Amino acid sequence: MADRPLILVTNDDGITAPGVIALVNIMKTLGDVVVVAPDSPQSGMGHAITLNSTLHLEKIKVKAEDYEAYSCSGTPADCVKIAVNEILPRRPDLCVSGINHGSNSSINVIYSGTMSAAIEAGIEGIPAIGFSLLDHSWNANFKASKHYIKAIAKNVLDYGLTEGVVLNVNIPKIDKKEIKGVKICRQAKANWKEEFDKRQTPQGKDYYWLTGTFVNYDKGEDTDEWALKNNYISLVPVHFDLTAHHSIQKLNTWSFNE
Amino acid sequence: MADRPLILVTNDDGITAPGVIALVNIMKTLGDVVVVAPDSPQSGMGHAITLNSTLHLEKIKVKAEDYEAYSCSGTPADCVKIAVNEILPRRPDLCVSGINHGSNSSINVIYSGTMSAAIEAGIEGIPAIGFSLLDHSWNANFKASKHYIKAIAKNVLDYGLTEGVVLNVNIPKIDKKEIKGVKICRQAKANWKEEFDKRQTPQGKDYYWLTGTFVNYDKGEDTDEWALKNNYISLVPVHFDLTAHHSIQKLNTWSFNE
Repeated sequence: MADRPLILVTNDDGITAPGVIALVNIMKTLGDVVVVAPDSPQSGMGHAITLNSTLHLEKIKVKAEDYEAYSCSGTPADCVKIAVNEILPRRPDLCVSGINHGSNSSINVIYSGTMSAAIEAGIEGIPAIGFSLLDHSWNANFKASKHYIKAIAKNVLDYGLTEGVVLNVNIPKIDKKEIKGVKICRQAKANWKEEFDKRQTPQGKDYYWLTGTFVNYDKGEDTDEWALKNNYISLVPVHFDLTAHHSIQKLNTWSFNE
Repeated sequence: MADRPLILVTNDDGITAPGVIALVNIMKTLGDVVVVAPDSPQSGMGHAITLNSTLHLEKIKVKAEDYEAYSCSGTPADCVKIAVNEILPRRPDLCVSGINHGSNSSINVIYSGTMSAAIEAGIEGIPAIGFSLLDHSWNANFKASKHYIKAIAKNVLDYGLTEGVVLNVNIPKIDKKEIKGVKICRQAKANWKEEFDKRQTPQGKDYYWLTGTFVNYDKGEDTDEWALKNNYISLVPVHFDLTAHHSIQKLNTWSFNE
């Protein structure tokens, strides 16, 4: 096509995170980039949206001036909504979210601000991908997976995605030469075993920090957890029709009128 | 059984909302009730959890003293986590969330704090139901559906739920005698067409309120939207394996190694 694709970039670690800057640099090789990202970290925000307070936008000065950037006071899902409705000149051809500093594999997709932005774009009919690297550190190595991130985004631009489907991509924390490739997976059955760290304020009042241990119950070799442990980049197609269709028949045997 | 079931009640409108009090009163007829609910409204919080700040719990004095109540500074999902790990004497037999002041049908399940609490309980293996009434007003009529809420909860206590499945129940805003019954449904394909209300601060700076119009694209008569429009209570089984299994085959034809 004559026009370059328009690519919306967002994240949940905030607009200054190295992960989003790495993602911008990859996307600039594929199209025209506009970044709309939270003005502060939003990890664990799930699919929150801002209903009871106001949203503020700030245009950010970008050194190279080869893309546009805005910070938004809202959640990742807010960023996508306001980008599409108030900032972008037309519907974007692709929305990418990340690169998250930390995993969004298996059940983490539910808590993930990164994925909520991608899912929000998907709900609006925009092809979307969330990228996450299994490394929380601020100076994580976002270069190792550059080739694969570009290849995944290019596939989506070239072939599109099935309606109602967005991609959840997780990247193992290993060197480039150790990465075995991209594996299409299902979400592993796993969860967090919470541990609340109970402390006291200087005034003697209890308070808590939420912490926990990740537990994978799933022995399947077709899961994202398996792929990541075995040096693959995991790619899980995710949808937002949450209906458990397999339960409908059984529930129809219940009586509600005794 | 000799022991009465232990029922955890939560919501996203906050512990003082009439909806949660209505739900407590129904659940007291089925078991021993402990309420752990947010100390302030959390609508639209999705599946947010509190990672970057502390959580505070407050035991609330309850007049009748026939149940226990705690307010929590966190999100609905936080409430379930802290209830299970720090408050309840044992695993609850049921977790109910609501009754929400407003709809959580179709795509609203994604943004819903009410449903995130139920889903969190589901992730922890606790049978769970979210209840929502299609009426935002504080003095909505929570009595009309009392019989059905009790019947649904009793079915779950008696027969359990398939692992990984929670129930999303929505109640039309009509009189008791107009309710035709409970209909097992799938999530309708619908979304919100956003409209940002752009205003200026007294200092002349732009800001936005997120508003929008709900659009149902789904003509199916097996959807929650259809059921609600036709005076049924809708019951959608919801799961948190977000894998779009139907997309896996197609994605396996992609190449990432050109």
